[in-house]
Amino acid sequence: MSGLDPAELTAKLVRCASVTPINDGALEVLEEVLGTAGFDCTRVDRGGVCNLFARWGKKGNHKSFGFNGHTDVVPIGDEADWSVLPFGAEVKDGIMYGRGTTDMKSGVAAFVAAAVDFVGDTLADGSIVLAITGDEEGDAVDGTTALLDYMAENGERMDVCLVGEPTCPETMGDMIKIGRRGSMNAHFKVTGKQGHAAYPHRANNPLPAMMRLMDRLASHELDQGSDHFDPSTLAVVTVDTGNKATNVIPAQCRGAVNIRFNDHHSGDGLSDWLRSEADKIAAEFGVQVDVQIKISGESFITPPGALSDLISGAVEAETGVKPELSTTGGTSDARFVKAHCPVVEFGLVGQSMHQVDEHVRVEHIHQLKSIYARVLRDYFT
Amino acid sequence: MSGLDPAELTAKLVRCASVTPINDGALEVLEEVLGTAGFDCTRVDRGGVCNLFARWGKKGNHKSFGFNGHTDVVPIGDEADWSVLPFGAEVKDGIMYGRGTTDMKSGVAAFVAAAVDFVGDTLADGSIVLAITGDEEGDAVDGTTALLDYMAENGERMDVCLVGEPTCPETMGDMIKIGRRGSMNAHFKVTGKQGHAAYPHRANNPLPAMMRLMDRLASHELDQGSDHFDPSTLAVVTVDTGNKATNVIPAQCRGAVNIRFNDHHSGDGLSDWLRSEADKIAAEFGVQVDVQIKISGESFITPPGALSDLISGAVEAETGVKPELSTTGGTSDARFVKAHCPVVEFGLVGQSMHQVDEHVRVEHIHQLKSIYARVLRDYFT
Repeated sequence: MSGLDPAELTAKLVRCASVTPINDGALEVLEEVLGTAGFDCTRVDRGGVCNLFARWGKKGNHKSFGFNGHTDVVPIGDEADWSVLPFGAEVKDGIMYGRGTTDMKSGVAAFVAAAVDFVGDTLADGSIVLAITGDEEGDAVDGTTALLDYMAENGERMDVCLVGEPTCPETMGDMIKIGRRGSMNAHFKVTGKQGHAAYPHRANNPLPAMMRLMDRLASHELDQGSDHFDPSTLAVVTVDTGNKATNVIPAQCRGAVNIRFNDHHSGDGLSDWLRSEADKIAAEFGVQVDVQIKISGESFITPPGALSDLISGAVEAETGVKPELSTTGGTSDARFVKAHCPVVEFGLVGQSMHQVDEHVRVEHIHQLKSIYARVLRDYFT
Repeated sequence: MSGLDPAELTAKLVRCASVTPINDGALEVLEEVLGTAGFDCTRVDRGGVCNLFARWGKKGNHKSFGFNGHTDVVPIGDEADWSVLPFGAEVKDGIMYGRGTTDMKSGVAAFVAAAVDFVGDTLADGSIVLAITGDEEGDAVDGTTALLDYMAENGERMDVCLVGEPTCPETMGDMIKIGRRGSMNAHFKVTGKQGHAAYPHRANNPLPAMMRLMDRLASHELDQGSDHFDPSTLAVVTVDTGNKATNVIPAQCRGAVNIRFNDHHSGDGLSDWLRSEADKIAAEFGVQVDVQIKISGESFITPPGALSDLISGAVEAETGVKPELSTTGGTSDARFVKAHCPVVEFGLVGQSMHQVDEHVRVEHIHQLKSIYARVLRDYFT
């Protein structure tokens, strides 16, 4: 293995205790490496979040490859539960331990190392853009979005983007994400009229209305899946009343659903549906139904094609594994990038992410760098 | 108004702070009055509860009229909310204030006063039985039940019984209760499997099963009423999950229903129905459904006839109001007495019972004594 060591770079990043939104020197580690290699580095800090934009090659170059990732990590929980120092980057039997080793300081280190080696050796024309945020695990309001805003305002661009999040469920190389389902929450409050359980006709019980509403929502088939997506799902996640007295009919009841939706739907369309179901129930039961909706992200897809072929080919060449093109899982910053350019995601096996004793096989960090390096070679030649 | 003053006796009882299960001298007040009048008094204390059995006339006499009532009261709540001393029995503008003035120390005082006057004046043959408990407002396990057990074990009997609870909704004399609906609670716990809201197929959400179960129970018509009863009712009183995370499918959900049922049903029959609905849901949704049922009381009816005619006639003669024969409302100790003999209930207007500044019109106490006295005259002559 030649060039910049991605495992050493990962260890340096892990030793920064960069729990969202704290940076603790993480982006400075990258700025130094990238600056030395000739990248133009710009800090795009916003709203208390630190972000780093880095470009090699001329601004506006037409053939521009982008990487996106984050250096912030989730909290460690109770340190006593860890068998190692959470920010120690200790290596035992070829495995590096620490918060962020999987999600995703090794991913960032791997693409930074691949990019640094590649521009030094090979790249004549074209450009490489790195958009690295310190807030992916938090609200993500001033993270990758701030970087994309900066790029739009300053004539910076990527033709395609690879997000280095962990994507493989079991084996290195077994999955590329080419899209993500959308996600939204709806909170319902049904209000009736309190009364004595012995005289239900003098009260107006909100519970039967809530039961019927939630039953209808949970029973409704949103779709049967689409070309690249599993069927959309709706989960009733809670219903609560808090009434301790069995001889009292309560005045109010609350409930919430979470929807993961594919490209048959939009957040607005689903909001309309939820509100119309709530209105129907309100009319049927003579109760008040309030709905509050929060759309966390719309669904998106980068259909299989040039970009997924590029990544897939590099993965298979380096690992011998042919990756599945998937749209499963939660959300990632790819949901923001997709508005800018075609985006796919590929990275490590994510099994230990967010857990105590999070860890990564050191050889996988090197393998990931090799995959990213091959992606760059194949893209530019 | 001649004879024993029921308002004075009420005031003496109100001045005993006999919040269930405390007696605070209340039954001793009655024992003294009744003993002086020639009643055989026996304390039937059980399980920390004080009860008084009193009989005038020979044991086992065939024509035996019974009264049932209680001297315990519900708590006063925050004394600062009262505009009078809660146990002061203060009289202002012809109204006596204090906890128990309505429910039901005045009722007890009225029937004790009526009985004392009647036996002194008139009664040659027959007997009058008073079964007075110190636990009607609490668990009622060792209250009227203890008195009835004592009577069965000692050859004591009543041919009919009048419970002196407040029964009139608006005007003195407007309602006699000839029965009561049964009451029961059922607590349901649905258990599935926790999981991430993004992967509902890997979890087993208990909420849709609970929604469907409660919807079915709430939608089911138990009956359309019977000769003397309103339709039975089922109220879903609470459903609770306690899940704060919208990305988590919870493992468990709890719910409870209260059923008020008429003579078309029994507690056991309804329990069977609830359990079979729970079993159906468990099979349909592949979840576990646990059911815990508590039957507070079965329904009972003393069909309109000699006893209700007797009471009704006395009420109309004294008040000019023809009482409605009703089976509405919650439970009372009549649910225990009905296993012993025909029982009906008649007493004051109950509007202020259990409230702050509970009160009674003094003239209503005298009127109630007159009604009870007329009942005794009409019964024995």
